[in-house]
Amino acid sequence: MTVDMEMICIGNELLIGKTLNTNANWLGKQATDLGVNVKRITVVQDIVDEIANIVQETIKRKPQFIITTGGLGPTFDDKTLEGIAKALNRKLEINQKALAMVREKCEEYARKNQLSTIIELTPPRVKMATLPEKTEPVNNPIGTAPGVYVDLEGTVLFALPGVPSEMEAIFTGTIAPMLKQAVGDRVFCEKSMFLHNMLESNLAPLIDKVMSANKGVYIKSHPMGAENKLHIEIHLTVAAKAEEKPMEMLEKAMKQLSILVEANGGKVSSNANLIMET
Amino acid sequence: MTVDMEMICIGNELLIGKTLNTNANWLGKQATDLGVNVKRITVVQDIVDEIANIVQETIKRKPQFIITTGGLGPTFDDKTLEGIAKALNRKLEINQKALAMVREKCEEYARKNQLSTIIELTPPRVKMATLPEKTEPVNNPIGTAPGVYVDLEGTVLFALPGVPSEMEAIFTGTIAPMLKQAVGDRVFCEKSMFLHNMLESNLAPLIDKVMSANKGVYIKSHPMGAENKLHIEIHLTVAAKAEEKPMEMLEKAMKQLSILVEANGGKVSSNANLIMET
Repeated sequence: MTVDMEMICIGNELLIGKTLNTNANWLGKQATDLGVNVKRITVVQDIVDEIANIVQETIKRKPQFIITTGGLGPTFDDKTLEGIAKALNRKLEINQKALAMVREKCEEYARKNQLSTIIELTPPRVKMATLPEKTEPVNNPIGTAPGVYVDLEGTVLFALPGVPSEMEAIFTGTIAPMLKQAVGDRVFCEKSMFLHNMLESNLAPLIDKVMSANKGVYIKSHPMGAENKLHIEIHLTVAAKAEEKPMEMLEKAMKQLSILVEANGGKVSSNANLIMET
Repeated sequence: MTVDMEMICIGNELLIGKTLNTNANWLGKQATDLGVNVKRITVVQDIVDEIANIVQETIKRKPQFIITTGGLGPTFDDKTLEGIAKALNRKLEINQKALAMVREKCEEYARKNQLSTIIELTPPRVKMATLPEKTEPVNNPIGTAPGVYVDLEGTVLFALPGVPSEMEAIFTGTIAPMLKQAVGDRVFCEKSMFLHNMLESNLAPLIDKVMSANKGVYIKSHPMGAENKLHIEIHLTVAAKAEEKPMEMLEKAMKQLSILVEANGGKVSSNANLIMET
């Protein structure tokens, strides 16, 4: 059984082209490497109703995991928790565990910077500890705003900060182990090879043939430059149980494809470029 | 009136973290610079039903423009047109105008590479000219697969190839002029400034104050590093008619914020860093 995950990335800066969505890329790679099936990424504006709508839509599709990024900070435009609260029809309330986390971060900050004054729990700081009812804060090892965890009967939702170092630390510390357990002994493997002297449109039927003969192996061609260039990257992936020997499945498919490509006038420049195996 | 746009990016490589979604970033920046309100980006897998579902969902939200990227090529995993056809409940059929475009590209390719044999219109090449009924091919100045255009009463949908150079060429040549006309004399302006010696949580109420006093100006803070670092980028944006003098609106808001920040112990390192004005 596959474990499905969706991402919701919140932030105008991602929509207006100011910020490249490296968070979605990083999370997609991590989750895929753990054997998770990443189904969708949706990017929405910092508007409560937009966030509430996409959270509700995503929950209806029933992925096992939903991860949101962005909008947990102290400023007015950090609206993720308000949006989640609205989607779940729950009130926002000061979460005492979260407040203790924020206070601890402020004290740590004052100590590190040798400030004599106490950093007050101002409204913007209390905001970071104001969570939808019946949700749990998740320790943020790097920044102030805690992550948020909520179990929705079959779907687990995590809200993570948008600052990459904070998002990555919470994912690695808290979410990755949960994904690993949910996935069980399924592994994801991938390999790449590069073809020359061949148009993608001539390659298409060869890929079809190899995919039909190798159930479970997914082969995708990426022309380097425009379609009428002669260089193509071939990316082979498989998600399977370890006992099904997924790497051997990939190697067999690559060998078959190499033979077909060469028989049709193409050249294979590297047929054993192992990228990743978990 | 704002002109809303949504993007649908199709491709497993974007979900598994193999490819960074630079297409969405580029399109978001271009459309925003033209004064368009980019509402959502959704990334989905190369699965016909996934594509059909997101196209239907997006049409229901009635943005004036929908742009899809990816999945127009010749291989089996290029499923965008099949997905769009299903979403619109239209048949796929060989489009003679598109077929002429593909043929012309093949002949051009043969000429450029001084091939003596004619490049045949094989099934994978015909596939690139197989469009949903009542849609129009759009000339691809760089690659083989034409873009696709369909007017859905209030919503215009463009399907673009995923190869960045091809996507960019079609956008610039065909879509940008349409967006410009739809937007009219609205312009988008942005400015950035950098603050030091200030926590984001102390800055939050100052931003609130300036935004309340400057209707239409949107101010977003981006901590550099983690939240408890002292460096923050402030990004101010406004979309307004030229006669409302949007640059002056931004400058006024920046000046007010600078004064507040300095009165609260912060430092402003650059308050006139003009990034872009259309």
